[in-house]
Amino acid sequence: MASPGSFSRLRTKLMFIYLLILTILCICEAQKLNQTSIVFFLQDIASTAPNATVVPVIGIKGKDWSFNSFGTIFAVDDPITETPNRSSNEVGRAQGILVTSALDGSNVSVLLSIVFTNKEYGGSTLELHGVSRQNERFKEVSVVSGTGSFRFARGFAVFETIYYERSISYSIVRCTIRLLES
Amino acid sequence: MASPGSFSRLRTKLMFIYLLILTILCICEAQKLNQTSIVFFLQDIASTAPNATVVPVIGIKGKDWSFNSFGTIFAVDDPITETPNRSSNEVGRAQGILVTSALDGSNVSVLLSIVFTNKEYGGSTLELHGVSRQNERFKEVSVVSGTGSFRFARGFAVFETIYYERSISYSIVRCTIRLLES
Amino acid sequence: MASPGSFSRLRTKLMFIYLLILTILCICEAQKLNQTSIVFFLQDIASTAPNATVVPVIGIKGKDWSFNSFGTIFAVDDPITETPNRSSNEVGRAQGILVTSALDGSNVSVLLSIVFTNKEYGGSTLELHGVSRQNERFKEVSVVSGTGSFRFARGFAVFETIYYERSISYSIVRCTIRLLES
Repeated sequence: MASPGSFSRLRTKLMFIYLLILTILCICEAQKLNQTSIVFFLQDIASTAPNATVVPVIGIKGKDWSFNSFGTIFAVDDPITETPNRSSNEVGRAQGILVTSALDGSNVSVLLSIVFTNKEYGGSTLELHGVSRQNERFKEVSVVSGTGSFRFARGFAVFETIYYERSISYSIVRCTIRLLES
Repeated sequence: MASPGSFSRLRTKLMFIYLLILTILCICEAQKLNQTSIVFFLQDIASTAPNATVVPVIGIKGKDWSFNSFGTIFAVDDPITETPNRSSNEVGRAQGILVTSALDGSNVSVLLSIVFTNKEYGGSTLELHGVSRQNERFKEVSVVSGTGSFRFARGFAVFETIYYERSISYSIVRCTIRLLES
Repeated sequence: MASPGSFSRLRTKLMFIYLLILTILCICEAQKLNQTSIVFFLQDIASTAPNATVVPVIGIKGKDWSFNSFGTIFAVDDPITETPNRSSNEVGRAQGILVTSALDGSNVSVLLSIVFTNKEYGGSTLELHGVSRQNERFKEVSVVSGTGSFRFARGFAVFETIYYERSISYSIVRCTIRLLES
C-alpha cells in the first residue's frame, strides 16, 4: 500500500496534467487558431449576351453601364466549378449584385451569396460583402456569415482572375475562402 | 484541531470542485450552446398597388419585372406583427432590397434589416443577408449582425409563407430567428 | 532543506495563482471586454452635380428620386478625412449603395464598405450594413465584418451629421466605429 504522501503527489500531478490540457483548450478558444480553407472557381460571362452570367441592370443616366462606370448595378449568377475547367463538377452558384462604387471606376461593391449545390455542402450558403479592387491581382472581401453547414461562419474570400477571354467577356476566377472554425 | 493531512485533502477537494466549474464554463464558451429564439410575422403585399410593401424598382431591359425574372430589384418595407393576424401588435418593419439573382428565377437575394419598433427591442435592428430559395418551404438566410440590443449578434433566420392570397399578392410569412447569445 | 509539507504547500499556492490567472483569461474571453474605437469624417455631396459623391441611380417609376422617396437607390463614394476639415488627410472612402427603404421615407438602408487608403489601415476594409434613421441624431448601423487588418471584425458604427450646407447638398458626417477585439 502506498503512503498518503505518494497519493497526494499523484493527485497533484494529475491535477497539473489536467490544468495543462485546460489551458491549451482555453488558448485555442481565445486565439481561434483553426481555420478551414475552401477553393473553387467562378465561371463568369459579363455581357448582355444570352449566356451571360453577370448582366448590367441599370446605371447612372447619361453614363455607360460598365465595371468602370460609377453607379452601374449588375445582377450575378455565376456557375461555380470544382476545378478551373468549365466542364468540371458544378459545386454551386455565386448569386447577388455588384455595383461600381468608386467614382474613378476602380472598385466594385460585392454583395453575393455562395449557394452550394454539391453533395458536401448542398443547401448551405456563405454570404460575401466587400469591395473588389479591380486593379489588384488579389481581391479580398469579407465572409459575413453563412447558413446550413456554415451557420455562424466568419472569414474572408480572395478572388483572383486566372483566365480571361476578351472576345466573349469570359473569366475564370479562383476563389479561396478561409473560415474560422467555430 | 484537524491534522495537516486533512487540510491538504480539503484544499485538494476544493480545487477539484473549482476546476470542474472552470471546465464547464470553458466548454460552454467554446461550444456557445446558448441560443435565443425570436418569432414574428411579415405582412407582405408584393405589387405595384398603392398599399404594396414590396415594389419592383428596376429590372433587366426587355425582361419582365418579377420574382422569377433575373435582375429584378425590389424595395421592401413589410410591417412585422406579433401574431399572423394582420391587426396584431406591430413589432417593427423589414426594410431593404430583394434581387432575383438566379438565372432560372428560383432564388432571390435578400438584404434586409429587421427594424424593431416595439417596447422590448425598439431602436434595435438585425441585419439579414442571404438567398431565399423560393421553391423550398423553409428559406434560411444569415443574420450577419445587429444594433442596439442586438449588437454583435450572429445567427440565422428561417422564413415560411403560411398564408397567400393571390388576388391581392398578399402573403403572411413566419420568420424564426435564432441568435447565439454573446 | 525544507520539509515535504512546505513543498506541498508551495505547490498548492502556485497552483492557486495559476488557476486565478486562467480564470481571469477565461472570463475576459467570455465577456470579450476589449473594444477598439475609430473615428473619422465623411465628406458627402448628395446631388447630381459633377462633384457629387452620392448619386441617385434609379427610383420607383412615377416617384421622385430622393432620400425621402421609397425605392430610390443611390451609389456612394464619399471621401473620408481624419478631421471634419475637408482638406485634412484622406484616410479612405465610403463606397457602396444606399436605398430609401421606408414607405414613409424615414429610413435608408446602408450597404457600404469603409475602404481605407491611409498608412495605418491601407488595403483594409470594414463592411457596414443596416438602416440609417434619418430623423435621429445618432444613426447606428452594424459592422458585419472586415478585411486585411480587420479580418473577422464585428461591431457597430454611429453616424452623426455635424455640418450641413443646403445650397450645395454638402454634409460632414462624424463616424464612430466600435469593434470587438478578437
